[in-house]
Amino acid sequence: MKSNTFFSKLVPKESKFYPILRSMSDNIFVCSGLMLSLVQTEDKEQRKELYRQIKALETKGDAIVGHLFDELNNTFITPFDREDINALGEQLDNVLDSMNSAAKRIVMYQPSVLPPQTVALAEVLQQCCELLLGLVGELNAMKKNPTVVKRICKQLHALENQADDLYEHILIDIFAKETNAIDLIRIKEVVQEIERATDNADSVGKLIKVIVVKYA
Amino acid sequence: MKSNTFFSKLVPKESKFYPILRSMSDNIFVCSGLMLSLVQTEDKEQRKELYRQIKALETKGDAIVGHLFDELNNTFITPFDREDINALGEQLDNVLDSMNSAAKRIVMYQPSVLPPQTVALAEVLQQCCELLLGLVGELNAMKKNPTVVKRICKQLHALENQADDLYEHILIDIFAKETNAIDLIRIKEVVQEIERATDNADSVGKLIKVIVVKYA
Amino acid sequence: MKSNTFFSKLVPKESKFYPILRSMSDNIFVCSGLMLSLVQTEDKEQRKELYRQIKALETKGDAIVGHLFDELNNTFITPFDREDINALGEQLDNVLDSMNSAAKRIVMYQPSVLPPQTVALAEVLQQCCELLLGLVGELNAMKKNPTVVKRICKQLHALENQADDLYEHILIDIFAKETNAIDLIRIKEVVQEIERATDNADSVGKLIKVIVVKYA
Repeated sequence: MKSNTFFSKLVPKESKFYPILRSMSDNIFVCSGLMLSLVQTEDKEQRKELYRQIKALETKGDAIVGHLFDELNNTFITPFDREDINALGEQLDNVLDSMNSAAKRIVMYQPSVLPPQTVALAEVLQQCCELLLGLVGELNAMKKNPTVVKRICKQLHALENQADDLYEHILIDIFAKETNAIDLIRIKEVVQEIERATDNADSVGKLIKVIVVKYA
Repeated sequence: MKSNTFFSKLVPKESKFYPILRSMSDNIFVCSGLMLSLVQTEDKEQRKELYRQIKALETKGDAIVGHLFDELNNTFITPFDREDINALGEQLDNVLDSMNSAAKRIVMYQPSVLPPQTVALAEVLQQCCELLLGLVGELNAMKKNPTVVKRICKQLHALENQADDLYEHILIDIFAKETNAIDLIRIKEVVQEIERATDNADSVGKLIKVIVVKYA
Repeated sequence: MKSNTFFSKLVPKESKFYPILRSMSDNIFVCSGLMLSLVQTEDKEQRKELYRQIKALETKGDAIVGHLFDELNNTFITPFDREDINALGEQLDNVLDSMNSAAKRIVMYQPSVLPPQTVALAEVLQQCCELLLGLVGELNAMKKNPTVVKRICKQLHALENQADDLYEHILIDIFAKETNAIDLIRIKEVVQEIERATDNADSVGKLIKVIVVKYA
């Protein structure tokens, strides 16, 4: 039997969306590791190379979102509302986008040295992305048992608060110490974008909480 | 009869969401008063103390949003779609978040003196938050009579435009007068965040307009 | 027969929403032409006059959004879900808002000269707005044949990437050359807002893709 018949469209192939979303969260997690390496080096060439790799993951992410969208258009029965699955893809993509944007700024602005706490911030971001792995991995069990998903969302929010505090301390420091305004802007914008990535990770959690409420 | 039985979940306890949302808007209104005091003082200790109070209200706000979410999960029949009530809670929380963020920046950056028009801007913000009180207070009558709700949304939008004009004048002023770039950034970021709080208040109005359209 | 009877409300006057949305996209396209002229002049008086015209279009846009909203409230049967049509109006309005905001900043900050690539960026923005014309013009055919709409959305996204690259090069340039921090901020904020307008145009495309998925 041919696989792309009318009937194959009707069969509830719930399972095919989960692997796509998982490949997104895998991609994001790998990217957060590169991000952490990037804030730990001051070498211009290394920075360029790491940005190149991050940019490649971002392009890959775009392709995955496109694939998800095509699948949504070719499937009659989806595990959640089509627009929720699509929104989830877009939201996950935002995490990747903000990491790419942070990396791009490091290469564009070439801050001579980033504040030491930036490493701690990138570590929190990596932990956020690890939670996203877990969160996406739990999606198929979410309707039956939302407890795990809710717990991970709470952890994501706690990490986002932690990132916020780190960001606050970094800013206090640079405004107290930095006397060159352009250097201050360079650092501020990079750190801001890393913090925004943790915000976007938290937004994935918030979106999933809304989906949980919808199917409760 | 025990109150948390299966039947108690079925009973349309519409009323329980309104008090929660009202406690949110009360919290926001109180916060806007502290915000106004904060932009009127240049004393470092007073600034710290006011920020401490604002931060406490923001933490309280987070707890209320969490409570709202739990109630949504424990109630079968809700006055509006679950996701709309949840979105409303999140959107209200954004108003609080941006006030907290403005306050935080005042303490982080310690601008020596804020432009005098900042007080006018904080007053407009307080008026916005007063309108939010009225808006949330009208939610239970919204389905039967959306006129009042629509009028308040229009007023919120008008105030947001007013805030925008004030913000514009403040920026023109500081770009014309300020010669120290770091001081310019300090002021700009604080004022920007207060203006964003009025934007977020207007977004609550926009969201409610969408909910009105949905149930029209 | 009087036209505003109960029955006239029931008749599926799908057609009335399309002209309103088309007048929005016309307005946006005209605005993008003014924007392009604005970044090509350094004359203060011309800048003021062009901003005045852009601001007038933005006010007109607000009125159209208000009109759309009123029609949604007075019509029982709509071609798409009410909230989707409303969201589309809001999203289109965001494109206009960011152009107005970019224009305002040029007049507020009066950067002595904008980087030459800013013209290329404003040209890309104009192309985005031309695509929006086409996109809105295809809405009524979207349910039967989503192919054209999907293709335009893809083109919008490609243009947004192009705008992103231009923005990146402009920033690299100003951070490498500009030594006056306040001038750097002036330029950066203007360019940023033009780039945000292309982002917002792309967001219209993303929203329409979600609507397509919903009715697929």
